[in-house]
Amino acid sequence: MIPRYSRPDMAAIWEPATKFRIWYEIEAHACDAMADLGVIPRENADAVWKAKDVEFDVDRIDAIEAETRHDVIAFLTHLSEIVGADAARFVHQGMTSSDVLDTTFNVQLVRASDILIADLEALLVVLKRRALEHKDTVRIGRSHGIHAEPTTMGLVFARFYAEMDRNLSRMRDARAEIATGALSGAVGTFANIDPAVEEHVCDRMGLVPEPISTQVIPRDRHAAFFATLGVIASSIESIATEIRHGQRTEVLELEEFFSKGQKGSSAMPHKRNPVLSENLTGLARLVRMAVVPAMENVALWHERDISHSSVERNIGPDATVTLDFALARLTGLVDKLVVYPARMEENLHKFRGLVMSQRVLLALTQAGVSREDAYRLVQRNAMKVWEEGRDFKTELLADPEVTAALSEAEIEEKFDLAYHTKHVDTIFARVFGEP
Amino acid sequence: MIPRYSRPDMAAIWEPATKFRIWYEIEAHACDAMADLGVIPRENADAVWKAKDVEFDVDRIDAIEAETRHDVIAFLTHLSEIVGADAARFVHQGMTSSDVLDTTFNVQLVRASDILIADLEALLVVLKRRALEHKDTVRIGRSHGIHAEPTTMGLVFARFYAEMDRNLSRMRDARAEIATGALSGAVGTFANIDPAVEEHVCDRMGLVPEPISTQVIPRDRHAAFFATLGVIASSIESIATEIRHGQRTEVLELEEFFSKGQKGSSAMPHKRNPVLSENLTGLARLVRMAVVPAMENVALWHERDISHSSVERNIGPDATVTLDFALARLTGLVDKLVVYPARMEENLHKFRGLVMSQRVLLALTQAGVSREDAYRLVQRNAMKVWEEGRDFKTELLADPEVTAALSEAEIEEKFDLAYHTKHVDTIFARVFGEP
Amino acid sequence: MIPRYSRPDMAAIWEPATKFRIWYEIEAHACDAMADLGVIPRENADAVWKAKDVEFDVDRIDAIEAETRHDVIAFLTHLSEIVGADAARFVHQGMTSSDVLDTTFNVQLVRASDILIADLEALLVVLKRRALEHKDTVRIGRSHGIHAEPTTMGLVFARFYAEMDRNLSRMRDARAEIATGALSGAVGTFANIDPAVEEHVCDRMGLVPEPISTQVIPRDRHAAFFATLGVIASSIESIATEIRHGQRTEVLELEEFFSKGQKGSSAMPHKRNPVLSENLTGLARLVRMAVVPAMENVALWHERDISHSSVERNIGPDATVTLDFALARLTGLVDKLVVYPARMEENLHKFRGLVMSQRVLLALTQAGVSREDAYRLVQRNAMKVWEEGRDFKTELLADPEVTAALSEAEIEEKFDLAYHTKHVDTIFARVFGEP
Amino acid sequence: MIPRYSRPDMAAIWEPATKFRIWYEIEAHACDAMADLGVIPRENADAVWKAKDVEFDVDRIDAIEAETRHDVIAFLTHLSEIVGADAARFVHQGMTSSDVLDTTFNVQLVRASDILIADLEALLVVLKRRALEHKDTVRIGRSHGIHAEPTTMGLVFARFYAEMDRNLSRMRDARAEIATGALSGAVGTFANIDPAVEEHVCDRMGLVPEPISTQVIPRDRHAAFFATLGVIASSIESIATEIRHGQRTEVLELEEFFSKGQKGSSAMPHKRNPVLSENLTGLARLVRMAVVPAMENVALWHERDISHSSVERNIGPDATVTLDFALARLTGLVDKLVVYPARMEENLHKFRGLVMSQRVLLALTQAGVSREDAYRLVQRNAMKVWEEGRDFKTELLADPEVTAALSEAEIEEKFDLAYHTKHVDTIFARVFGEP
Repeated sequence: MIPRYSRPDMAAIWEPATKFRIWYEIEAHACDAMADLGVIPRENADAVWKAKDVEFDVDRIDAIEAETRHDVIAFLTHLSEIVGADAARFVHQGMTSSDVLDTTFNVQLVRASDILIADLEALLVVLKRRALEHKDTVRIGRSHGIHAEPTTMGLVFARFYAEMDRNLSRMRDARAEIATGALSGAVGTFANIDPAVEEHVCDRMGLVPEPISTQVIPRDRHAAFFATLGVIASSIESIATEIRHGQRTEVLELEEFFSKGQKGSSAMPHKRNPVLSENLTGLARLVRMAVVPAMENVALWHERDISHSSVERNIGPDATVTLDFALARLTGLVDKLVVYPARMEENLHKFRGLVMSQRVLLALTQAGVSREDAYRLVQRNAMKVWEEGRDFKTELLADPEVTAALSEAEIEEKFDLAYHTKHVDTIFARVFGEP
Repeated sequence: MIPRYSRPDMAAIWEPATKFRIWYEIEAHACDAMADLGVIPRENADAVWKAKDVEFDVDRIDAIEAETRHDVIAFLTHLSEIVGADAARFVHQGMTSSDVLDTTFNVQLVRASDILIADLEALLVVLKRRALEHKDTVRIGRSHGIHAEPTTMGLVFARFYAEMDRNLSRMRDARAEIATGALSGAVGTFANIDPAVEEHVCDRMGLVPEPISTQVIPRDRHAAFFATLGVIASSIESIATEIRHGQRTEVLELEEFFSKGQKGSSAMPHKRNPVLSENLTGLARLVRMAVVPAMENVALWHERDISHSSVERNIGPDATVTLDFALARLTGLVDKLVVYPARMEENLHKFRGLVMSQRVLLALTQAGVSREDAYRLVQRNAMKVWEEGRDFKTELLADPEVTAALSEAEIEEKFDLAYHTKHVDTIFARVFGEP
Repeated sequence: MIPRYSRPDMAAIWEPATKFRIWYEIEAHACDAMADLGVIPRENADAVWKAKDVEFDVDRIDAIEAETRHDVIAFLTHLSEIVGADAARFVHQGMTSSDVLDTTFNVQLVRASDILIADLEALLVVLKRRALEHKDTVRIGRSHGIHAEPTTMGLVFARFYAEMDRNLSRMRDARAEIATGALSGAVGTFANIDPAVEEHVCDRMGLVPEPISTQVIPRDRHAAFFATLGVIASSIESIATEIRHGQRTEVLELEEFFSKGQKGSSAMPHKRNPVLSENLTGLARLVRMAVVPAMENVALWHERDISHSSVERNIGPDATVTLDFALARLTGLVDKLVVYPARMEENLHKFRGLVMSQRVLLALTQAGVSREDAYRLVQRNAMKVWEEGRDFKTELLADPEVTAALSEAEIEEKFDLAYHTKHVDTIFARVFGEP
Repeated sequence: MIPRYSRPDMAAIWEPATKFRIWYEIEAHACDAMADLGVIPRENADAVWKAKDVEFDVDRIDAIEAETRHDVIAFLTHLSEIVGADAARFVHQGMTSSDVLDTTFNVQLVRASDILIADLEALLVVLKRRALEHKDTVRIGRSHGIHAEPTTMGLVFARFYAEMDRNLSRMRDARAEIATGALSGAVGTFANIDPAVEEHVCDRMGLVPEPISTQVIPRDRHAAFFATLGVIASSIESIATEIRHGQRTEVLELEEFFSKGQKGSSAMPHKRNPVLSENLTGLARLVRMAVVPAMENVALWHERDISHSSVERNIGPDATVTLDFALARLTGLVDKLVVYPARMEENLHKFRGLVMSQRVLLALTQAGVSREDAYRLVQRNAMKVWEEGRDFKTELLADPEVTAALSEAEIEEKFDLAYHTKHVDTIFARVFGEP
């Protein structure tokens, strides 16, 4: 987790204080359930809640851990310092450390998911607004980086919207994947703890009980979770790449917002770098790198080994913090992205109508000209445009063989941009719903 | 795709003949839709269906492609050789190659998904059967590879069932991810083709129209698809790892089925290697390696570049064929897996009751013995077991300080395996539903 | 391995016939060594060489394997069919299958390395020629896709040369990594085979003996090998990316060679797609995906498990065949790459001298103008260029505050391209050696 | 970077204070070189060295950066606060930020390499000691987790030694890969800075000048560097896996050192978990995950984009810190690893001589018994051992058909462990050099 690429709410989820708070809640709810079952005295369960509003002393817990070399024992010791040894004596009874640790990790991932879901929702709002704003802003579509046919900037935003909407749906699924808890003991048999305790704790913590766990919650869930983050990150890279292309000097159809105060902006007006988009490209790689280790974590030995733990200590915070930061940065970037419609128009006409050559070719054949002849006619006019800088439509109108097959109006129509945008509303209705 | 790791049905999806057949269907359905719209003559659309039962000549198409250097044109040329140039003249009208190629790829992935779904369903049947069969077969649970507490072999199978059931659900989602088609033209604007054509073709091909495409179907869908295959592969590795551990000489609780005829089986009865499980471990790596490139494929330039194509030519067939093979191999492996309950019992008692030391420790404290004393009591008896090969229960029963706190019946109860299996039915009901 | 992305020499290395030939040579050389040691009769060793010029019948071997389910035994059976059972009776004596298989795999990788090394050498020749050709072809350098300062196209080629030269060196190291053989028996102790046999076979096969093997050659070697292929692939992606950028419509400084006959070339002269470079981008991903599984292969269990085998059956051929194809394609691409110097000059001047603003700013401060004033002066002239389309130098020469600090000659000098190219020879000497 | 998995010396390399110190040295040495060239006054260059022993105020620099939003400018401002604006006025002249940043990153990687090289050297010392100690400690070799033939524990250590020795060599190569610096300006042309400055700075900083750079040092170097770390991590996983297997309850030939004070050690003597080895397995995944993003970083756009930067801010510290920690942990683990020779012997004899069945089979055929008969003889005796728990050698000696072919001495010899260890010295000489 790199401080400059983190935001406070997400970072807070991964702080020791948050972790201990969740541990505490799990233990306290477990005591409640055990008291309900008559396994431990009700007053002991109640007494544990005395620590409800106490802030745990992280340094103190660390100090105890340094001695005991066991984090959960360290925490329990500190808890008993707060609520009293007698009140605390039944805390954690019948439980194994993983009951607390694994359930906590999932609570953290659920909370992280909630932030990421909100991030995606916020991004969608902005993408939709920009899509509507530029629904009719014509821009040349490009395949292979080469001019193809006209499209609109609104369609570009709309497709990013649709993609991020899919990501929102995937993120919700991913949240469900890891919204489980387990308090099932050393090998998952509930030998020392009643399943009712697990049910109660999960209910209170916003989780569902893991149907079958070992000592740990199965890691295929986490693999699916981090894979989803990787897909979202890849979509971020996709949008970032579009902006980077749009801002390059020769294209200059898009520009990251550049605040007036930013040094160098006006002494070198040509040198505004799409650094945010480039940064997002790198951040996407960082999120994505969590995917493979999360998958390697699935095949634990027998009822568990601890090889996954160090991996998760890293990718748990890092991937969620980085993705949260990236989504927020992207939202701001799209929100303020400077779009240059005039420049889009200029680029569209860069080769003076040549992008319409395909339509003309088709029209000629439909008018009865043989494929070979149609090809020859388009070619000889296209080459004048390409090599001599002439205007394609003008050349066509002046070519008697062409005008013998197509009327002036027909030729003019081939250069009508409305031909290309006639279904934009249809597509928008598909993406955003009927207006 | 390695022949020895492929099965015919899945491999057939990726054969040229299949591809051309799908291309044909897309083109023919598109003609129908265009005829309905009055864009092309109905008789031409009808005539295209003359090729319905014709087997395309792959070599001939290849020969044409070698000349034209364009696969779709080669196919269309061959099609016109079959149905006649006149009938074929409106085929592909207004379409772009990607309309056919991308929609076809998704049809292939959908069909591959159907096989993978069936594979998972078949695996689940077998896992459930083995789980029920060994519901009460007690086996020591292990954390860190070290004996922990008893569990049952049925629970092991049940947890693999639950995991594969999640994978089935993920696979169905993945199928939905890529069950879309697009016939939207060079930059996705439907400039030259009516959205109704896309709707008709998708309907006939078992797909839904991609709400917004560019020249291509957005690749976040494919990234999510291949990520799912990677998760499933990781689960396969997990089961394979369990079997490999179970078969190692010192454990020998499990054994891959070894047919009587297999050379060397009885001259070296100790040397039966879990080669299928090891192979599955490698195959899991092969499937998983498709995940990252599929994610790298998402950020295409503008309305498309072709960088994803070579990647998909490889991972499309390879990842699905390998996963299909692996799932089928795993199903056979689990189906016939030899389980040795007697050996499980023997291993469980390897350290003569020491695995119960935790329960005894807990019982002593609950009986009012201080933690320090309880610990000391357990320790001094445990060390006799560990160092001198004695029996733990016998030692405890002979230790007056222990018997002062716990009755003989209480001590006996600590060694009762039923304590550990009492919730097996509950867990089974969670996993398989109420009986 | 996708046929369209493979070349015959590399593909041949991975064909069954080649594999059996190598197996044969290993077995025959091993017989020689054993005869020298007096372990087997000399005439038997000699007799094995009768098969020296015989082409093995792959189908026959496959048929035997289908029965015996053991590839090496199948081969040995076939060999005995050729040289006679008596001659063959000492073949493979004391050896384990892996002795043959692992040594063979490394022979194949060494041969693949030799092709890749030749590929890189061929690429270097072309890169050097293009670098020298365009040593002085000025082109704007770009950071963040934005115009920065002038450089030359020769320097672009030179840096790719330097990078590929490093890759050549890495490839040679990678070859050395896997140029080892092992004939050390079931667990690497030479219990049944003398180390002298290993030495003799390795010597004949162009390998060095693996200092210590288990049943297999350690896989860290292969991990390092495939990692190297991944690095080279990444460099290919880097060059491909440069070309893709250079060919995009708005830049058009570079163009993949487009043969006269290629369909559509002149009817749509603006639509020449950098499909080879895009393809190389995808191929780079394919090569790179071998890296992680090769690393996952390192941690085999004890003296070996067979999990690595299926992985290597795939990545062995696929990664080397794909990289060979990619390098050859890249060499052809660079060889014929169309470079447009006029267009480079045009792009360089796109903003009428603004790319020199930094030099002017520096000159003003060096002339004693305060930073703030210098900045203000540059800014007010730059904005006229940026917003009103004027020429930067003209504006500066007309600004009395500027000319008060800098003479006309000094201002002129700031726009002298030679300033930027003055060290090109130095850099070329560093890269290519003194001329 | 996770504090619990970091060591102070490596962590210190990545602290802001270290970074600023390196920046300073680069700037100061550059001033010296410029003074030597007469580009700036000597006294200014000298004055910069006044800050030589000053500790930079990181908070102050951060505060300035918060304002200027440019880290290098912030540092230079702080420097001028220390040495005085006049002295500082020529600092950084003609340089671009990347000149400092990239060169600094490589200085950090070189220093990290030095630590990693020392780590590997320390590990080698320990591995060699343990290898010599257990040169003759016989242990059953295992393929597929199944008993194969005897080997020695010394050979296990020796092979890890050989593997880590290769890693040491790779690490030295990796160090050389990134031991370059560049001070070549905005696009690498040395337009504003003389190559002599780069030479001087590199010389002083322990680097060699990058032969050709753009704005940045080419990233194929870093890809190769991080790939090497990934290979080393995979070797660590390999050793860790061996120990985890060796410590599992049923094997128990190895045990991680368990300090007397460690809680629970003696109350549950059977429950000593190989948590360090498991942790190393996870750490290996963490190091390895840097490899792919480092490769994705290679294809920067034109003369540079900044996408690599966020990736390197993460993997630079994380991969080196984690690998350093892992190597140190592994060294301690191997150093104190508890080896149980008696248990090894016990396991070796687990199936009462069956592991020798292959030798007996071979001996029978060599004694003239047909393959079929030999097989039948071994089989009937082996099955008595396998199914009835008898002793293999005893059975063979009692089988008249066997003794008809082999004398008692010959049979005895087949069970002689010395047969398997006779070449241990040869192998040790290969690995460690002649004694």
